[in-house]
Amino acid sequence: MGAYPPCIDVAELENSELGQSGGITQQVHTKLISRARPVIFTRTMNPDIRRERENATFNPEILTNILDGNVEKTRRRREIESLVISDPDFQHDDLNFMSRSERYDAALKKSTLMIQKLREYGIADPEEIFFYKSAARGNFHEVFALHHGMFIPTLHKLGTPEQQKEWLPLAVNYHAVGTYAQTELGHGTHIRKLETTATYDPSTQEFVLNCPTVSSIKWWPGGLGKTSNHAIVLAQLYTQGRCHGLHAFIAPIRCMKTHQPLPGVTVGDIGPKFGFDEIDNGYLKLDNVRIPRENMLMKYAKVEPDGTYLKPPSDKLTYGTMVFIRAIIVGESARALSKSCTIAIRYSAVRHQSELQPGEPEPQILDYQAQQYKLFPLLATAYAFTFVGQYMSNTYHRITGDIDQGDFSELPELHALAAGLKAFTTWTANSGIEVCRMACGGHGYSRCSSLPDIYVTFTPTCTYEGENTVMMLQTARYLVKSFRQAREGQRLSGIVSYLNEPQRLQPRPVSSRPTVVNINDLNSLVEAYKIRAAKLVEMAAKSLQGELQRSKSQEDAWNNSSIELIRASDAHCHYVVVKLFAAKLSEVSDTAVHTVLSSLALLYTLHGVAVNSGDFLQAGLLNVPQLAQITQRIKALLEEIRPNAVALVDAFDYRDKMLNSVLGRYDGNVYENMFEWAKRSPLNRTEVHESYYKYMKPLQSKL
Amino acid sequence: MGAYPPCIDVAELENSELGQSGGITQQVHTKLISRARPVIFTRTMNPDIRRERENATFNPEILTNILDGNVEKTRRRREIESLVISDPDFQHDDLNFMSRSERYDAALKKSTLMIQKLREYGIADPEEIFFYKSAARGNFHEVFALHHGMFIPTLHKLGTPEQQKEWLPLAVNYHAVGTYAQTELGHGTHIRKLETTATYDPSTQEFVLNCPTVSSIKWWPGGLGKTSNHAIVLAQLYTQGRCHGLHAFIAPIRCMKTHQPLPGVTVGDIGPKFGFDEIDNGYLKLDNVRIPRENMLMKYAKVEPDGTYLKPPSDKLTYGTMVFIRAIIVGESARALSKSCTIAIRYSAVRHQSELQPGEPEPQILDYQAQQYKLFPLLATAYAFTFVGQYMSNTYHRITGDIDQGDFSELPELHALAAGLKAFTTWTANSGIEVCRMACGGHGYSRCSSLPDIYVTFTPTCTYEGENTVMMLQTARYLVKSFRQAREGQRLSGIVSYLNEPQRLQPRPVSSRPTVVNINDLNSLVEAYKIRAAKLVEMAAKSLQGELQRSKSQEDAWNNSSIELIRASDAHCHYVVVKLFAAKLSEVSDTAVHTVLSSLALLYTLHGVAVNSGDFLQAGLLNVPQLAQITQRIKALLEEIRPNAVALVDAFDYRDKMLNSVLGRYDGNVYENMFEWAKRSPLNRTEVHESYYKYMKPLQSKL
Repeated sequence: MGAYPPCIDVAELENSELGQSGGITQQVHTKLISRARPVIFTRTMNPDIRRERENATFNPEILTNILDGNVEKTRRRREIESLVISDPDFQHDDLNFMSRSERYDAALKKSTLMIQKLREYGIADPEEIFFYKSAARGNFHEVFALHHGMFIPTLHKLGTPEQQKEWLPLAVNYHAVGTYAQTELGHGTHIRKLETTATYDPSTQEFVLNCPTVSSIKWWPGGLGKTSNHAIVLAQLYTQGRCHGLHAFIAPIRCMKTHQPLPGVTVGDIGPKFGFDEIDNGYLKLDNVRIPRENMLMKYAKVEPDGTYLKPPSDKLTYGTMVFIRAIIVGESARALSKSCTIAIRYSAVRHQSELQPGEPEPQILDYQAQQYKLFPLLATAYAFTFVGQYMSNTYHRITGDIDQGDFSELPELHALAAGLKAFTTWTANSGIEVCRMACGGHGYSRCSSLPDIYVTFTPTCTYEGENTVMMLQTARYLVKSFRQAREGQRLSGIVSYLNEPQRLQPRPVSSRPTVVNINDLNSLVEAYKIRAAKLVEMAAKSLQGELQRSKSQEDAWNNSSIELIRASDAHCHYVVVKLFAAKLSEVSDTAVHTVLSSLALLYTLHGVAVNSGDFLQAGLLNVPQLAQITQRIKALLEEIRPNAVALVDAFDYRDKMLNSVLGRYDGNVYENMFEWAKRSPLNRTEVHESYYKYMKPLQSKL
Repeated sequence: MGAYPPCIDVAELENSELGQSGGITQQVHTKLISRARPVIFTRTMNPDIRRERENATFNPEILTNILDGNVEKTRRRREIESLVISDPDFQHDDLNFMSRSERYDAALKKSTLMIQKLREYGIADPEEIFFYKSAARGNFHEVFALHHGMFIPTLHKLGTPEQQKEWLPLAVNYHAVGTYAQTELGHGTHIRKLETTATYDPSTQEFVLNCPTVSSIKWWPGGLGKTSNHAIVLAQLYTQGRCHGLHAFIAPIRCMKTHQPLPGVTVGDIGPKFGFDEIDNGYLKLDNVRIPRENMLMKYAKVEPDGTYLKPPSDKLTYGTMVFIRAIIVGESARALSKSCTIAIRYSAVRHQSELQPGEPEPQILDYQAQQYKLFPLLATAYAFTFVGQYMSNTYHRITGDIDQGDFSELPELHALAAGLKAFTTWTANSGIEVCRMACGGHGYSRCSSLPDIYVTFTPTCTYEGENTVMMLQTARYLVKSFRQAREGQRLSGIVSYLNEPQRLQPRPVSSRPTVVNINDLNSLVEAYKIRAAKLVEMAAKSLQGELQRSKSQEDAWNNSSIELIRASDAHCHYVVVKLFAAKLSEVSDTAVHTVLSSLALLYTLHGVAVNSGDFLQAGLLNVPQLAQITQRIKALLEEIRPNAVALVDAFDYRDKMLNSVLGRYDGNVYENMFEWAKRSPLNRTEVHESYYKYMKPLQSKL
């Protein structure tokens, strides 16, 4: 071990300008990070991973700037992250060593610290707050997530000026800590069937809130169990004997002085989950809880003192929020997958195993084609999704102005796109994280790898904010509608405009068709994805038509075409992803970066063709000999990417403190640090566990 | 809720013969189970799930008998399970409510109880022990697993009669509690490179054990951290200045009286993992630990008192154990997947959501085609893997006699098959569990569903006992070797005999080829899987050949053909699975059961064709119009299976106590019991969590 070349000395660093923010390199950052707690083995870099970095053909810093947006954004992000990383208040032991109650305690402490520090630093820009919190959260969640993400925004969106004046000061000073209670034990996706009621009593000018059944108990909201003293409750509004559907009400649930639950309120934690251990997702049962009329959020719909109901002017208002959240989730898919790739690829660079040549030293795992074939398509996917996330976010912000002015024209397309891409990217990232974990061998199962934490923290995105299958079907509805419009002669614009081109879609026997695809040309491949999508949308529409002809109802026809509809959405989303990846390349001016990103884009695209080869053969877009050529081309791309793999994950620029993974350490010193980590395991607090005396000794004496 | 029809009354049951073992129905069993702890909502069965059972077209009891082997085996299994289920000593709260230390404590308690009770009951047959332990373990693991599964068997297999006489009595009475320490921090799969050394010192007639590097620390063995006082240590044997490779040594690691680690021994828990919380997987660092010469297991290789090394007669001896363990893992894949399907399908039968027809009540989730398409192919897979597991176990037992007599002729084929099927079934089940979990919506994320526990308990099978990618490549090595032998004119027998038929594999243009497959005929489809496998083995062999012609070494050619080799293994395993499923049907005499199993077999087979359609098109086994027909046929099969779905999971016969899933309850009373479960969450022990006073109150007063 003593043979490792020495790295920049920490002592040196402390006296250098590099220790300050700005112009700081990743390497120096890592050294900064490692100062935060005394770990023994950080002064040298593993020679394998050092060599990987030396052999890269491009400068990862330039790619980092592209991912951030520009040089200045990278600088500012790092500056903000360093505020957390260098802050002794954020040093604590691994949450994995704690009980759930201790984890909640640690998470609440961290959440309150973040609030105070962000105010202290004067950080108020949403993106900068995001950077700060991401650094502080690491792979876990924030207790006040729904207070910031739903409670306060809903007050803004649905509250009257008077309500905002009353509630916002309470909320921003955390006297009223709130959550958003929509989902019930028996109802998630289909919110129209929620059962909680708010019945107006004009005699007292109050609403009476009730969860009349077990299945109507509010269930899942984050921060509801122990943290919040208020909840925005979604309930069926009854007034003057009629139900007017779901409306939002501010319900006090705990005393603002003692934090005890209020009369009629049963509130608690829903119990342990797959991940989110530090969060108190909660239940809430309301029994004749009376709230003043003014606690109904009345910016749009209103109930007058006498109980008269006034309808809202439009129902499209909630669209924007959903689109925004789903666009953010696309970005989360990219982050979770890029973190996982960082860990798996760095570890594969320092892990030696088995032999390629008898008698030779064990090669780096990264030299195995099978390992490359697992990881590099996922690395390419992480880049693809990053660019898709940027696109979604930019598009959302571009049309937000229009929405605010009441122009919803672009919203349906964006809504359909956000739904499908949310499902497409989360499903892909979800399985991809697990591939990365299992690509690390046994150690991927250790919590010190952080891969289990990344997985359990990420996987709920497949279900929340719109269950993925439902999302795919929503996108399909838009696609089929667009397809029909095109067939009826309407000229489609935007991303579905490819459905205007029916001439491409005439079935012809495969053998007589000229080959459409040039497998070495990204644009030609994008075109093939487009035609595949068009073909599958057409097939879905035909399936619907066929089902209807068998005299089924619209609804049965829809249900009986679900397989085709989901396939069509999937192909549409896949097309959008390859198209956006290809488009991004044209923005990259640095030649070396352009070259390596082009390899990734081609790998992503060809890998997708190989995995879905049946579709492409079926659509006559490929012929059989081309399939073998694609395998060869993929292998060549794996070889091309191999020397840049570590630099490509370095460019994601996750500092050790944020990644919190022993396997994914920037310096590659995995095994020494794994041993140090394990020694801190709670089971090692005593040499002999107390249960030995309780069970093993008696057993030995009995037998 | 009061409208639910009453079920058999518990009070009635207590006085009836049904309360005894034998002739007991699942329904009654469930009632018995529910007596174990006072839960309020068990006296009625959910009407949806009751109706599902009434509408089934077959008797699940007959299918259960087929899965068990025969009627008597079902009876005996249930009898043994009831010993656990009715035993008040095995009642405890959900492990998910406990800290890791508490879980370890509970697991050790349970393990010692099982030992005492099995002796008390006189249960000694391995299968019956398995039934008993499965019932007691539920979805978790046993602390003494490696003591029973590796320590004692290794003493039997590698110990001399004298060693057995000395050690076995200590081991069976738990004075010597042992584990099997092979894997090191830096080495898993490639055991030849393990670094721990055992150096013989003839002056004292002792071996000196050392872990000379950090990467040589023994890492992962179950029960090593806190439980074991002995370990069988795999180490490089050095004597008379030469290394003779890996050998097994009995190393005392803790004092048998005080349980304190012995001098030179550093032992502890490796820290929290993804699952296995209740198990103390451990590390072991040996520094000049001296053990007597007699502690080397010397049945085969020997070191004489003067240090002379005597070679073992054969190296095939360890094959059998690996084959056996991998065959067991195939069965574990079936069990994990069938448990997951049981939970997801039962819950989908009682869960109502969204709408198919406007104004109509919300349908059961199981009526959605998208849900059926997720779950029914997995249900079919669970049956397929169950039959494959039976076949592997039977075949292993059949040829064990031959192996004991020194006849290894069938072993290479079985070894290759076990490796590939271990990988094929665990990968499939692994992703399938997650599909089941996510098919349960948000509640699948709750630990009360047990789906997270099933996943984290199962997923290590993809890595341990032979990493899956390595396993696939082992199988590929056998396939390519067989293919070459066939090409050289050797006549292959056994399961690879299809490689004898090269005439089938001549490339012909797709359009001119007659359609090979009848998509409604299972045997025709099995034939297609066979030809696909043959084709992909041929492609892998050709890739190897091509790489060699580019003047690469054998090893580089192998590495550069990994993609094709793994595909070939995958197709081979897939063929074996469909073949065994089809073969099983011929053993089923009950017409109704035969019909429903035939639907499942066809669904499994067609679904595999659809997912891998590129392969079948490429091999000219399908034409494009048939793909659309396959989708239609799959849809028809989903409809056929739909009324039997609940009965098909009932037939797996997992009692509530073993499944431990609120969503998968036999009586379908999900929501009431979920609420009861949540109330017991540790975070609900106080109304106000202590962290409120520590962090929230101060925050509120500061801002």
